Amino acid sequence: MRALNFSPGPAGLPAPALERARDELLDYGGTGASIMEVSHRGREYEAVHEEAIALLTEMLGIPSSYQVLFLQGGASLQFAMVPMNFLAAGGSADYIITGTWGEKAYEEAKFIGNARVAFNSITPEKQHLRVPRPHELSIDSRAAYVHLTSNNTIEGTQFFDFPDTGTAPLVADMSSDFLWRPFDMSRFALAYAGAQKNIGPSGVVVAVARKDFIARGRRDIPKILRYSTHADNDSLYNTPPTFGVYLVRNVLAWMKEQGGLVAIERRNREKAQLLYGTIDRISSFYRCPVERESRSVMNIVFRLPSEALEERFVSDANKRRMIGLKGHRSVGGIRVSAYNAVSVEDIRVLTSFMEEFARANG
Amino acid sequence: MRALNFSPGPAGLPAPALERARDELLDYGGTGASIMEVSHRGREYEAVHEEAIALLTEMLGIPSSYQVLFLQGGASLQFAMVPMNFLAAGGSADYIITGTWGEKAYEEAKFIGNARVAFNSITPEKQHLRVPRPHELSIDSRAAYVHLTSNNTIEGTQFFDFPDTGTAPLVADMSSDFLWRPFDMSRFALAYAGAQKNIGPSGVVVAVARKDFIARGRRDIPKILRYSTHADNDSLYNTPPTFGVYLVRNVLAWMKEQGGLVAIERRNREKAQLLYGTIDRISSFYRCPVERESRSVMNIVFRLPSEALEERFVSDANKRRMIGLKGHRSVGGIRVSAYNAVSVEDIRVLTSFMEEFARANG
Repeated sequence: MRALNFSPGPAGLPAPALERARDELLDYGGTGASIMEVSHRGREYEAVHEEAIALLTEMLGIPSSYQVLFLQGGASLQFAMVPMNFLAAGGSADYIITGTWGEKAYEEAKFIGNARVAFNSITPEKQHLRVPRPHELSIDSRAAYVHLTSNNTIEGTQFFDFPDTGTAPLVADMSSDFLWRPFDMSRFALAYAGAQKNIGPSGVVVAVARKDFIARGRRDIPKILRYSTHADNDSLYNTPPTFGVYLVRNVLAWMKEQGGLVAIERRNREKAQLLYGTIDRISSFYRCPVERESRSVMNIVFRLPSEALEERFVSDANKRRMIGLKGHRSVGGIRVSAYNAVSVEDIRVLTSFMEEFARANG
Repeated sequence: MRALNFSPGPAGLPAPALERARDELLDYGGTGASIMEVSHRGREYEAVHEEAIALLTEMLGIPSSYQVLFLQGGASLQFAMVPMNFLAAGGSADYIITGTWGEKAYEEAKFIGNARVAFNSITPEKQHLRVPRPHELSIDSRAAYVHLTSNNTIEGTQFFDFPDTGTAPLVADMSSDFLWRPFDMSRFALAYAGAQKNIGPSGVVVAVARKDFIARGRRDIPKILRYSTHADNDSLYNTPPTFGVYLVRNVLAWMKEQGGLVAIERRNREKAQLLYGTIDRISSFYRCPVERESRSVMNIVFRLPSEALEERFVSDANKRRMIGLKGHRSVGGIRVSAYNAVSVEDIRVLTSFMEEFARANG
């Protein structure tokens, strides 16, 4: 029996995407081999690779001036690749810091060049509880780029409107909310996402970048670390994580069957409303520390009256086959990760449990 | 029905390793989730991660002064990480070039610092047909490291004895022959291998490095690109390619069941003898271009009297469910990749076909 998986990432994937993988794991399309056992330059894998790109391009409406890339190394390698490619000597890049991952991206950039903090949401108590309002940002119009984290997996905050960075190219780490809804790619020079939240297993990064931005990248760094290398070779410069890309394809195909990003967004908003509604209704027991306007639709964090109760909550939920609810070790509390593969029904089971648990322990 | 898979990589994996993955793909150990759907910091994945390291340590007899790492980005990212970590300004590194991949490693190093060619097997006809004899190497005893490629996947040559590099640390790209037999790790400062030949799917790199060598790495490069970061965090600094590591674990467990590296080596030598024996016996039809002493046990390359016959060979073999036999596009001909998952029986079927094909077309 499948658990109700609320893990923050690696996270639950849609069962149909996994069933498809299981059914053809030893024999892909009559080849007598798994898709992971055949050449990345052969007909079978290339069709999967191209289908994944086509599905993404179609569902997001990606303009032809952009290119989809499959990369490795997680968002963490992107934290290094972005400044290595785009932060030239003498230049400067702006970082909007709204959580742990944005901090890490900024720290990596400082090894490469001049990285500036355009905003930092950190409180005196070292917490990140919100994303900025436009007037709070001090964007350098000559910045090589402006980097932000669209959703803060650990802190449970999210950007719903993206800042206007003027002439400075906007780069976004969308690891934990990529494809939660349709969005206008033309606002971004580069958006990247580790797959292990909404779109696949860990080990694959999906990046979408404007071709003229890619072309600006430095040529005096190792080839493997240049976006242009991957773009020029359709993400087949070296062997991609073929099974990971195949699973991303399966997830994207499932998303399309579900009605695409408009339907996905509707479901995601319904799930978040159910959760925040329950938290707010039982405010004597549950408390969301995050500023209301910044509350993430993907990672819903909340506290209980005591850490002992939080522990019992996680353990009781576990007994009912609800997994992945423990908050990140750096912030504590409870975290519900309600990525695309989590159904409205899963959330209803959880909110019922939340009501019951509050009644029994409140 | 499973094909006889002679692909160069991504390559065939042992059926038991894949069957195990298939059987628990939607529910790992009663968790109600796939191993790829649970946290990399949770009990289930950590046990897999540690088991993979323990199996490798045991089978190779890795000394405690070494550490096993799981990395991403393929051997191609290692080509950059090695010089980024170990080639300091003013220093110099030696490269032994015996094929395409060694050339690529050397080219990447030149973006970082002073890379020297200690040997290059390239002929005036731009072919690599052998590995060097010890007296042919000009090793700089003060080199930051000496880099070699232990097996040349494309060219079909292999090192059987490793050069004595004196005080200079030896670094080896073992992507296509790692674990083909036992070897003395203490000869190497660092050995790395893309998993997609002998040990797993693409997207995972296994590296084994001496701890004091790792500690020598530069600290002024991004954290994610330092070996020390991955070593200090037991390869869990960022989310590893969890499903890939899990499959590596399954393959290593299978290898141990087969009798470990001594048994694996015996099988690999028998397979290679069958193939080279057939080529040499039918020398009027088959011709191995590689110097006899350098003939690879992993990738057996040969030519037929004409390219038309080579094409027919591949296509006739395909009809008998033998796949992956086409030589690399840069060198042509036929290539049999006989990695650990290929059985002696598979090779017997192939050599029978070779005899039959030569009779019919010779």
